[in-house]
Amino acid sequence: MSSESPVDHGLLSPVTAGHDDLVSDRAVLVALVEAEVALVRAYGDVGLAPQTAVDAASRLDPHAVDAAALAGAAVVGGNPVIPLVGTLKQALPEDARAWLHRGATSQDILDTALMIVAARAVIRVRSSLVQTAEALRRFAASHRDDVVAARTLTQHAVPTTMGLRATTWIRAIDRALGRLDALELPAQLGGAGGTLASFVEITGSSDAARDLVAAFARHAGLAAADAPWHVTRWPVTELGDALVQSVDAVGKLAADVATLGRTEIGELAEGSGGGSSAMPQKQNPVASVLIRSAALRAPGLGSTLHLAAALAADERPDGAWHAEWPTLRELLRLALGASAHAASLADGLRFDADAAARNLAATGGLVLSERLSIVLGPVLGPDAVAGIVAEVGSGAVLADAVRRALAAGDADLDVAALLDPAGYTGLAASLVDEVTTDEREEPA
Amino acid sequence: MSSESPVDHGLLSPVTAGHDDLVSDRAVLVALVEAEVALVRAYGDVGLAPQTAVDAASRLDPHAVDAAALAGAAVVGGNPVIPLVGTLKQALPEDARAWLHRGATSQDILDTALMIVAARAVIRVRSSLVQTAEALRRFAASHRDDVVAARTLTQHAVPTTMGLRATTWIRAIDRALGRLDALELPAQLGGAGGTLASFVEITGSSDAARDLVAAFARHAGLAAADAPWHVTRWPVTELGDALVQSVDAVGKLAADVATLGRTEIGELAEGSGGGSSAMPQKQNPVASVLIRSAALRAPGLGSTLHLAAALAADERPDGAWHAEWPTLRELLRLALGASAHAASLADGLRFDADAAARNLAATGGLVLSERLSIVLGPVLGPDAVAGIVAEVGSGAVLADAVRRALAAGDADLDVAALLDPAGYTGLAASLVDEVTTDEREEPA
Amino acid sequence: MSSESPVDHGLLSPVTAGHDDLVSDRAVLVALVEAEVALVRAYGDVGLAPQTAVDAASRLDPHAVDAAALAGAAVVGGNPVIPLVGTLKQALPEDARAWLHRGATSQDILDTALMIVAARAVIRVRSSLVQTAEALRRFAASHRDDVVAARTLTQHAVPTTMGLRATTWIRAIDRALGRLDALELPAQLGGAGGTLASFVEITGSSDAARDLVAAFARHAGLAAADAPWHVTRWPVTELGDALVQSVDAVGKLAADVATLGRTEIGELAEGSGGGSSAMPQKQNPVASVLIRSAALRAPGLGSTLHLAAALAADERPDGAWHAEWPTLRELLRLALGASAHAASLADGLRFDADAAARNLAATGGLVLSERLSIVLGPVLGPDAVAGIVAEVGSGAVLADAVRRALAAGDADLDVAALLDPAGYTGLAASLVDEVTTDEREEPA
Amino acid sequence: MSSESPVDHGLLSPVTAGHDDLVSDRAVLVALVEAEVALVRAYGDVGLAPQTAVDAASRLDPHAVDAAALAGAAVVGGNPVIPLVGTLKQALPEDARAWLHRGATSQDILDTALMIVAARAVIRVRSSLVQTAEALRRFAASHRDDVVAARTLTQHAVPTTMGLRATTWIRAIDRALGRLDALELPAQLGGAGGTLASFVEITGSSDAARDLVAAFARHAGLAAADAPWHVTRWPVTELGDALVQSVDAVGKLAADVATLGRTEIGELAEGSGGGSSAMPQKQNPVASVLIRSAALRAPGLGSTLHLAAALAADERPDGAWHAEWPTLRELLRLALGASAHAASLADGLRFDADAAARNLAATGGLVLSERLSIVLGPVLGPDAVAGIVAEVGSGAVLADAVRRALAAGDADLDVAALLDPAGYTGLAASLVDEVTTDEREEPA
Repeated sequence: MSSESPVDHGLLSPVTAGHDDLVSDRAVLVALVEAEVALVRAYGDVGLAPQTAVDAASRLDPHAVDAAALAGAAVVGGNPVIPLVGTLKQALPEDARAWLHRGATSQDILDTALMIVAARAVIRVRSSLVQTAEALRRFAASHRDDVVAARTLTQHAVPTTMGLRATTWIRAIDRALGRLDALELPAQLGGAGGTLASFVEITGSSDAARDLVAAFARHAGLAAADAPWHVTRWPVTELGDALVQSVDAVGKLAADVATLGRTEIGELAEGSGGGSSAMPQKQNPVASVLIRSAALRAPGLGSTLHLAAALAADERPDGAWHAEWPTLRELLRLALGASAHAASLADGLRFDADAAARNLAATGGLVLSERLSIVLGPVLGPDAVAGIVAEVGSGAVLADAVRRALAAGDADLDVAALLDPAGYTGLAASLVDEVTTDEREEPA
Repeated sequence: MSSESPVDHGLLSPVTAGHDDLVSDRAVLVALVEAEVALVRAYGDVGLAPQTAVDAASRLDPHAVDAAALAGAAVVGGNPVIPLVGTLKQALPEDARAWLHRGATSQDILDTALMIVAARAVIRVRSSLVQTAEALRRFAASHRDDVVAARTLTQHAVPTTMGLRATTWIRAIDRALGRLDALELPAQLGGAGGTLASFVEITGSSDAARDLVAAFARHAGLAAADAPWHVTRWPVTELGDALVQSVDAVGKLAADVATLGRTEIGELAEGSGGGSSAMPQKQNPVASVLIRSAALRAPGLGSTLHLAAALAADERPDGAWHAEWPTLRELLRLALGASAHAASLADGLRFDADAAARNLAATGGLVLSERLSIVLGPVLGPDAVAGIVAEVGSGAVLADAVRRALAAGDADLDVAALLDPAGYTGLAASLVDEVTTDEREEPA
Repeated sequence: MSSESPVDHGLLSPVTAGHDDLVSDRAVLVALVEAEVALVRAYGDVGLAPQTAVDAASRLDPHAVDAAALAGAAVVGGNPVIPLVGTLKQALPEDARAWLHRGATSQDILDTALMIVAARAVIRVRSSLVQTAEALRRFAASHRDDVVAARTLTQHAVPTTMGLRATTWIRAIDRALGRLDALELPAQLGGAGGTLASFVEITGSSDAARDLVAAFARHAGLAAADAPWHVTRWPVTELGDALVQSVDAVGKLAADVATLGRTEIGELAEGSGGGSSAMPQKQNPVASVLIRSAALRAPGLGSTLHLAAALAADERPDGAWHAEWPTLRELLRLALGASAHAASLADGLRFDADAAARNLAATGGLVLSERLSIVLGPVLGPDAVAGIVAEVGSGAVLADAVRRALAAGDADLDVAALLDPAGYTGLAASLVDEVTTDEREEPA
Repeated sequence: MSSESPVDHGLLSPVTAGHDDLVSDRAVLVALVEAEVALVRAYGDVGLAPQTAVDAASRLDPHAVDAAALAGAAVVGGNPVIPLVGTLKQALPEDARAWLHRGATSQDILDTALMIVAARAVIRVRSSLVQTAEALRRFAASHRDDVVAARTLTQHAVPTTMGLRATTWIRAIDRALGRLDALELPAQLGGAGGTLASFVEITGSSDAARDLVAAFARHAGLAAADAPWHVTRWPVTELGDALVQSVDAVGKLAADVATLGRTEIGELAEGSGGGSSAMPQKQNPVASVLIRSAALRAPGLGSTLHLAAALAADERPDGAWHAEWPTLRELLRLALGASAHAASLADGLRFDADAAARNLAATGGLVLSERLSIVLGPVLGPDAVAGIVAEVGSGAVLADAVRRALAAGDADLDVAALLDPAGYTGLAASLVDEVTTDEREEPA
């Protein structure tokens, strides 16, 4: 492992490539150093560390640390904090060294650093989802009344609108945003066994130890935890759940765009499709494909985080904690990449009204057969409706068949209105309006 | 498939056997009928269905339906609602039949029924978790100051208290309770394509259709959804996440009890261990083992729910929706079983103070080596502390080694106090008090 | 838990309902009794158990045991074998009782019973897959030369044939059959700690104990294991992997049928589609949908089996073993149901040649653009080919554009042949022939 | 994404750091180029590409390609092959360019490259597992007759031997080796739709196209596939299954070492434990912890591969294929890292005979209670045995209690021999011998 041969540039992960600077090893290393520095500053705040030590620690440069070398050195002790502390101490003046990592355990620093990384990544995921939802709101408003076929179990069912379909995407994204907004990402400071005994010993009192914890969280830019969460891993699983839910939301969008953009359907298209190495005519729905690749992978990663939480035995478990780190990071990566692609997908999404109309007509009007049952059933009886459906199945024109049945039943109705799909979209328009005019407020 | 050969009594699932009446096929069938009845009542509320139809529907007896036969009949159409509607209509007077399932699609009824089932199951899971947490609060208070070894990566690390360890269980359970309390379990009523067009057609207006939706949710005893969530599956995944988090929480408890009850450790024991078919002396930690079996299974089920959400293409997907039903039910079952076992485990949990003391002494006092570093390091230098640790590793008595080192360093200290593990438990006591005196309030 | 309220008839699992008699609790109970009887018979074989005991054991009737009651009783000890032994002893004459379960541990019986159940289920899964593959061979042969559009990333790519597409299904199924055929399903007999000490003690010699193990496997109808596999769980994970692979194979088939049967595509249809509760015109691809629901669930179950294998600590683990039972059974159930539905799906599968031709023409011939690049590129240069593609994109007729380009380039070619999709299907026909004439032999 | 900020050095994955050079992005890039070169060489073999083109292609230097830049460029088209072809063409003389990637599709190259990468990684995983098994054979032979307590559900059950326990590890590893040896890792060459039409067109005949396929596989150093497996993904899932099984096997080893090395148990220790950042006395079982972190992660990754196989719709699916790449690579990485750590763990594994003896005595001899039942039961009756167990539970010495019971029952027995755990280890010794003398042969 040398800095010349990094493991992974994202070559096999186009959905995340270019969207992972916030969660790269470099970003983790920066956060690890920030966590160590936050502790020194906290010691300064409680009046223990001298200002010179605080200043020296604050000047520590994470970019001076060789991440690849650190990764290699992390193997011996099983985590990167142990060698990092040694490296950072070398970079400090001798009288400041004692305050670095003082009283802390590796888990304090690593958990806190991962929360710092997560907090930054979540802000960007959130931003991409907000952009996605905004673009989709515009799209939904534009296509509020464009009638399309609703499809269930792959088959045309009844009419709906493009606007309403888009609201299913928006509502899922808004809900995921709510989960991201509600996350608590706490700092971790518990010492070797979660008792904070080292901090009480060092600071000389329980109150000072508590002040230290609060100052540490503040300097780390994170929430202060009620108690150490070293083996109470909801901060990780709730984060994981919210990330998976975010990817689910854009996964649903991508599934619809990929499906409705099939050559035969063509109702939707990405703004810029990807090319093919062999077939010049193809415009592949690349963003959808990439988002879907993330959506297929994310749930399994979330599952591993839950498993690790359930297996968090003792005061630090023998493997479960270590399984979390790369898993959480990969999940952050997928959420970053998938949401970024979703934002550009949503921005460029194109609706083909002609294709939609052609598709809507594909069943010869039988997409309205539910309406026929409701309207004509009471007038003509269910058998007559079944007869109409059968006739159309055999090639008859629906309007003619309806008119014949009405005549036979001695009934009268505005057949053109009855058979207008736009007249059978229920609350679609108002369900769109609720979403498109409901401006999402930014949290303070 | 006949009623003589039910598929599953729970023979292979002792963790759930006896705790699944709320989610059995019978319970699902009851909820399916309740959902259908709720719709008829809603039609009554909006002034459409005559009171006679409402009354007739209200008298429908789900127990008169043969669940096994229905399961068989469900295969043809792919879901049990289609044959159920036929069966229920037979049980209604002719003039009431038209109001049954009117305008609804199978998904409306099945999703609503699963939410009804889930709501009931969640109440019981919640109750079991509250019981578990209450028993653990008593346990934590009782053992607030019982000093034990904190273990990290399987090795003794520093002292902690049994009380503090118990708070890690309690905090995880409390957090899971918060997730359960925050769940929204909405009714589903969207019609064939999620537009509610059928309900607008039948009721004659958008306003009446909206009233119908609200009345339906009310009669189903569920929250009213902002919009149909037929392909916006957060109600399912958020439920799943909260259930998995609940199982994680008791899984962590079980992992600790199983580990700390090992023959050589013996710090904890279940109130009543299970026997063995071959070894009369054994008292197996059966509750812990069963809870752990659930904790290993739950994350994968939660993952499948997320996958189904991400693949919810179209207005009803071609498999993803169907994958949810048994998965969600099994997850409810695991949460019911695991939480019930946790409640009895917590209630009977026994702490063996002698074993704890014996264990704490196992390292000859080196469980305090961190404290030695902190206290003696500045006085005698780090080399002297390492020397003490090495001496003890070679068989010396710690107190003697410390006294020798202090003498050599011309320093003085209360060695007995320094080496008392009870003096190095940091904030443990107050962290226990915060949890044991923080009475959890029942939601209104 | 009483026999009046069984947990599960399959109401929420239409993909498995009616296909699970071989893995029902009743079937498990039968196998548990068979395993116990096999041990008594083995004791007879090695000359220890008197014939009267063997005969009495052989008359034990599993149907006389109340499965629901047993499920309830299983909770105390954590597995159903402990109460079952008690129940069965009651049914034996006193002098035979000593030989029942003699020297065995619960795991011996439960693991063996699950292998018995699995062996039977695998035979049926195998049979369903063989039926599926045979029907698909007929289908592939029938449609050997029917040209269709190959689709990549949802877009038309190049021509292929319906026959060749069907071979991708067949090859996956054949491969899964190979995995099922190669499975080893061994009996388990190791005693309490896997040493067979009890059997050596009872039989009086190592040789007799080994004979007992061999006789036990023989009477159980299973392979004899090299050694106890109580915590070497490859028999379970390899079985799980083969089952998941089987479900994957039919899942791919179902994915294609569902996709290609979409209203706008219509190339494929199930022989008998399912109805809808609201829309009389719909013919849903119910078999495909149900198979897909299994395919989405199976991988997670397989994953849980691997996890249990990796966590099989000690000589019997504290939860991992218990997590296997319901997981393995559900996976067997999914394989049984999915393969049975696949067999009927394959049998009734219909190809719509008109729809296929209409689809193939959807790109105005650009489905052949790769061929144009290969054939015309060297003659006219790549820019000319791009020009043709662009012209067709703007509405020109492909043959005209090609002819114009050839004329401009002063070149000559049989344009009709060039633009015939049937002329650009490569090895499709022979790849079909290899599969359709390669009769799969039944294992002896 | 620049070459200055690689995504991942392994900082968060100590189990794999330093063991992933064979699967790094650089290694993938090398394999991608090898796959492209193999195709040019294959064209040379069938007499089409001129030797100058073959030579020029053979000189292509993958190290001249900027992997990070390629990763960035891969996003547009959704895979790295498209931009790679462009880059490589620039590096070729003009007359050789036409032969690069000729007739191929991205999937041909990427699938083949991943199989090349996998083949190399599997050889190393295999080698590490062979080393692990060899070291464990020596360990098992050394400790063939060292009696230890067998533990079931965390409790002492009966005696076993350290040697026999080690054979459970060896058998699992040997089985995994068998699966790795049986893998088929085929090259992929099917062209855009899996028909090989482009190759037939280019080579002018079906036979030549087949020759090309064979030559391609040969030059890629892989097996030749019966047919394109573009959407028949068993090569990926079988590989994944075998890798997960490999990780399971070492996971079981690690679980036992971590458990039996707990401070209170101390039967096993790693050769060199890892240090702690805070507690100088600790010797953490780092290799076991790291291996376990891999074992918790691998099953979920295998599951994602199966899911992708089941969702491989069309002739190339819209996301499922893309989900495979990083998943398979991460699984290879875990198998490489976990097996390498297992080899060193096995090599340094230490058994503490004193601790084992102390543990074995922990139940006051009741670890032999099964034997008492078998031997004394028939002589004294089951109640007498229960009485002995109860007496010992209340503090009596077992030998005394047995002697008293024998006297009361007027029976005689060699009590010392009866109570010697070494006399109750059944077939342990011969089960060890079978494994330790069964030299595994290297495949030719």
